[in-house]
Order: sequence, then structure tokens, then C-alpha cells
Amino acid sequence: MSLTIALDGMGGDAAPGIVVDGAAQALERHDDLRFILFGDEARLQPLLAARPQLAARCTLRHTPDFVAGDAKPSLALRQGRNTSMRLAINAVKDGEAAAAVSAGNTGALMAMAKFVLKTLPGVDRPAITSVMPARRHPIVVLDLGANVDCGPEHLFQFAVMGEVFARVMLGVEKPRVGLLNVGTEELKGDDVVRGAATMLRGSDLPIDFHGFVEGTDVTEGVVDVVVTDGFTGNVALKMAEGTAAMFTAALKEAFEVGGLRAKLGYLLARPVFQALKDKFDPRRYNGAMFLGLNGVVVKSHGGTDALGFSAAIATAADLVRKGTNERIIEEMGGTKPAAPVPDAQAAAS
Amino acid sequence: MSLTIALDGMGGDAAPGIVVDGAAQALERHDDLRFILFGDEARLQPLLAARPQLAARCTLRHTPDFVAGDAKPSLALRQGRNTSMRLAINAVKDGEAAAAVSAGNTGALMAMAKFVLKTLPGVDRPAITSVMPARRHPIVVLDLGANVDCGPEHLFQFAVMGEVFARVMLGVEKPRVGLLNVGTEELKGDDVVRGAATMLRGSDLPIDFHGFVEGTDVTEGVVDVVVTDGFTGNVALKMAEGTAAMFTAALKEAFEVGGLRAKLGYLLARPVFQALKDKFDPRRYNGAMFLGLNGVVVKSHGGTDALGFSAAIATAADLVRKGTNERIIEEMGGTKPAAPVPDAQAAAS
Repeated sequence: MSLTIALDGMGGDAAPGIVVDGAAQALERHDDLRFILFGDEARLQPLLAARPQLAARCTLRHTPDFVAGDAKPSLALRQGRNTSMRLAINAVKDGEAAAAVSAGNTGALMAMAKFVLKTLPGVDRPAITSVMPARRHPIVVLDLGANVDCGPEHLFQFAVMGEVFARVMLGVEKPRVGLLNVGTEELKGDDVVRGAATMLRGSDLPIDFHGFVEGTDVTEGVVDVVVTDGFTGNVALKMAEGTAAMFTAALKEAFEVGGLRAKLGYLLARPVFQALKDKFDPRRYNGAMFLGLNGVVVKSHGGTDALGFSAAIATAADLVRKGTNERIIEEMGGTKPAAPVPDAQAAAS
Repeated sequence: MSLTIALDGMGGDAAPGIVVDGAAQALERHDDLRFILFGDEARLQPLLAARPQLAARCTLRHTPDFVAGDAKPSLALRQGRNTSMRLAINAVKDGEAAAAVSAGNTGALMAMAKFVLKTLPGVDRPAITSVMPARRHPIVVLDLGANVDCGPEHLFQFAVMGEVFARVMLGVEKPRVGLLNVGTEELKGDDVVRGAATMLRGSDLPIDFHGFVEGTDVTEGVVDVVVTDGFTGNVALKMAEGTAAMFTAALKEAFEVGGLRAKLGYLLARPVFQALKDKFDPRRYNGAMFLGLNGVVVKSHGGTDALGFSAAIATAADLVRKGTNERIIEEMGGTKPAAPVPDAQAAAS
């Protein structure tokens, strides 16, 4: 069955080129996709004309407005009603598209998506969720930056959503869930993580709660799902990205100053380096899900290329096909007794 | 002039062996050091007897008590008055030693050090401070885990102390100071980091405040001093450590499965890998300073070896010789007008 994805044609450092090329690449591997492409016709039409296979599966919707990369999210929300980003989200709301993908301003995308689509029942706040490489296996990490201040109940909800995501999207039968903390002992951390741990331990959901994990446990892959607030999660992700980049650069430099012998070694070992590069290629992991929204919205890295953007499209299609949101709704239905219920009215809501 | 360092002989995974060996190694490079070694005489005496050069510069003080690695800090503080850790800190307080070094329980060491030594004037809380490798140059990062909850005024104080540390210990003439955040724009983050940024911008201290930095800026070395709360700092440090370990392991594995050609390449490139390994050797960066205490206390990584422990001793000696605490007191004297002054009484204190 064909599946339609709404694309923000103008979002991302190298838009609209990477959006159109990314869609074309996604279509090569998933030939049942259809697209609605929002943005500046004058720029998009020639790009589509050069790719007839894509053009045949793609509807172009012109809008001159777009959200700037440095726009303030609240301002973009108020003034950006005709932007390519907003119209792509509206298409999901209206049922025209099954999902929206954008490489644009993350804060604006989250603000608009929350406003237009609202959250799933039982979810207070959506979380930016992504798959990251770890030593033993890929892992799911959330929140990566949507919520800088969280209460225990938000981390609890992230845990439930992340667990579903790992089962559905990574195919892990019984994902282990860990709360990111400064140590593994029960007493470590602040009230928020300790409160979330208490809620997870007390929940009668069938979640395999591992307890607290440290930064080194994340990269080791001690658990399948790492739950944290958006401040810590964002720093953690970028520290990992930065360290990998530093390591790669240092390796390159060391070979450059290593003389002839090192150069020969490099030539011989080139397939090894290539395999390693492929393994950690950030484009493979591109496409962060705004988990907890009543609709599928995927954020591509702003600096990605067409290959990376096609991965974000594939993630969006996969999320829809595997019914991730439906599974979260089912699971959230079971969480009510575990969440704190302040009064009868709240319990009935 | 000789300088005396108090050593917790029983702290660390491989204590007391690494403590005694580490002291012996430190003495080889810094022959004016003296040590007071606290711990179990029955275990320490034979180790010293085998190292006559060290024994001649080392006073052994017997105590059967020590702080367990998993001891609760508050309990260790109340019940650990005769532990090797506590006695080493007392030696600094009593003026017998210029600094204390321990590879033991971090929380207990911090609790005891704060209780015994108190903080420097103008400093509310000590911060765990360490030097980390970054792409352009080594950087100073604090707090790495002492204070999971911080207010803007604490981050402000960390910034002042970290700037002094970078000048004194790394020899950076005009260190740039950054606040770790989820983005570089002024609006990003929570009230704590935004409040600290306001205080730093408004301060008339001669601090080169760069503004906010992200995780990728940390590893790039965009600034010389990275200021953050203990929760985020601890996660950031361990994510960097974990990512480096993951990368190294993946490189090793890729060479192992790469066949004969890869093995030959590895042999030729071995000096390159060795240079890289040395560059990022965590033992080179071992020794985290409890900055802001009225005394020098250095925490060695619990899992380090003798070489790592000797680096922690060298850091402690360097901190004393360079008068780091005296420089912080001077600098803090100038900060008063910038800190919020709620009432006249507080201003007079």
C-alpha cells in the first residue's frame, strides 16, 4: 500500500537540494512512497523536473514562506502559518500525509507539531528520540532536547514510550530501560531521577527497568533504552558526536605526520577504516522522532546530506508502518495506575 | 623546598599497591616530595620496605579503618573519623601536609573534605574539576559530579574558579569561559544557565565569557573552561570516556576481522596508534581537583594504576606550588559586586 509523506522542502542547511535528492533516494529503496513537497515552487520545480521518477510520485505545494534556522520557536509558531514546515505538519493533521519530515529549526518544528497535532493520550510532552550506536548494539535515547526541565512523571512517560520504540523499531523483544544518572547506586542523582526510578519500580507495566546508568554504560550498551531530560540528553548526544569527531580527526592527523611507513599502513588498512566509518556513519542514524505526538513527525539533522535525509524519510515510513503510535497508546493505557493521581477529577480525565 | 602530601593508602580498586607504587613513581620525577601515608600498617609496611627510596621520604601512620568504595557519604562522614581517607584530610587541615590525594569513594571524600576544610571565602560549594583532552587543546571542565543541583550563583562561582585554574595550571593567558547548554543562542536552556550567563555578562571581573557552548564545542575546544552543573558534567565526561572506549574497541575489532592485509597494515601503522593512544591516555588526565576547598584535595580515578596515581600526586603538588587557592581567593574578592546581594547583612558577611 502506498504511504504519503509530507516534506518540508525548505528546511535544512542545504535545502531544498538535499530534500529533493533525499526523497529520490528514499523512493529507490521504498517504491511505494508518495510525497507532498512544500516550499518555493521556483526553486523546487526545476529540481523535480530533473527527477521524473520522483516527480511522478510527488505533489508540489507552493508556499513562499519558510522558517529561518535561527527563528525563535514561539515567533515561528505565531507568524509562520504559511511556512513549508507548518504546512507539512498540517498535512499530517488533515490526514493527507501519514508523516512529516523536516531538516529545519528543531524548536520551531516541535512547537508547531505540538500545537497542531497535540500529544497522545497519557503523554504530557513529546520527546526527541533517536537511535545511537553503542558497543554491544544500537540503543534508543530520549529526550534529546525538547524538554530542558522535566519532572519524574515526564521521565516515566519517556521510559514507556522509549520501551515501545525499541520493541517496535529495533525489534528488541524485551528492551531493558535505564535512567541516565551520575552513578548506578539508588541514592545517586537528584529528586527527578530518583522519583522517576520509584515510579518505574512501582509500575505494574511489563517494563524491564534496569535502574540507573552512567555515561559509560550508555556507550557500552548496558541497556536498550536510555531515558533522560532534554538538557542532559542533548549534551550527552553531542559529547558522543564530538568525541567521535575528535578521535577521527586525531587518527587522520597521526597518519599524516607518520611518514611513509604510516601511509603504507593506511593504504593496506583502508578497508578497515572504511568499515569503521560506515559503522558509525551519523547518516545511518539520522532522523529523530518526536515521540508522543498524535502524528508522526521526524526531524532530520540540519546539516545532513541527501543520504541522511533519505534515512529520515525511511524512519518516518517505518514508524507509520509499524504502528508505533498505536502501540504507545495501548501501553500508556496501562500506565495510569502507576502515575500519581492527585484527585478524582485528574483520574477521570 | 620539600612539599608534603598526605596519601589515603587504602582508597581505590587496586589499593594499597597503586598508592605506594604511584608515590614511588611521583618521587622519581619530583624528588622534593615527602609523603604521609595513612592505612593498614600490616599491608603498607612490606610495600614500603621493598622501596627504600620512597620509605626514606614517607611517614607511615597506621589506622585499621578505611572507607568502603560503596559507602554512603553521610555515613562515612559520621562513622569514618579514623579512616585513612579522613586522616589524610585532617593532615591538610592541621598543616602537616600541603595536599591530600585519594583514589577512594568520591562522595565520601567530598563530604569529609567539605566538613573538615570548609570552602574558600566567596565559594558556596566546591566543584570537581578536571582537565580533559579536546581537539584544539586540553580544556578545564567543572563541576564533574559534586553538585547535581546548582543555582546560577554556583555556576558563576565555578566559572571564576575554573578561569583561575586554566590560567594557573594550564598557563592559558586569557582563558575563554563557556557555559554548557543545549545550544549557543541566548534563549536556549533553563533558568539556571541563563541566570549564570546574565551574572557573567554583568560581572566586572576580567573574565572572557564566550557565552553558551554545546557538547560538540566542548570536544572541539572552542573554549578553555567549560562550566556546568555536576549532573550534566558527570554525564558529559563519562559519555566522552565511553565514546572513546567504544571507538578504540571498534577499531581493534575491525583490524581483527580484517585478515592478513589489515594485520600488515596494523603492524606498519603501529607507531601511529601508539601515538594516538598516548595522546588520549586517561592516565595523563588523572587527578580531579576539589576546587573551592580551603585546602588542596585531589581525587584519583578509583580504577587507575600506579602511573595514573602518580599523575594525581603531581597535580596536587602543582596546585600547591602555583598557589591556585590563593589566586582564587584574590579573584573571588573581586566578585562580590557581581553576585546578587539580597540584604545588608549578607553583603557584610
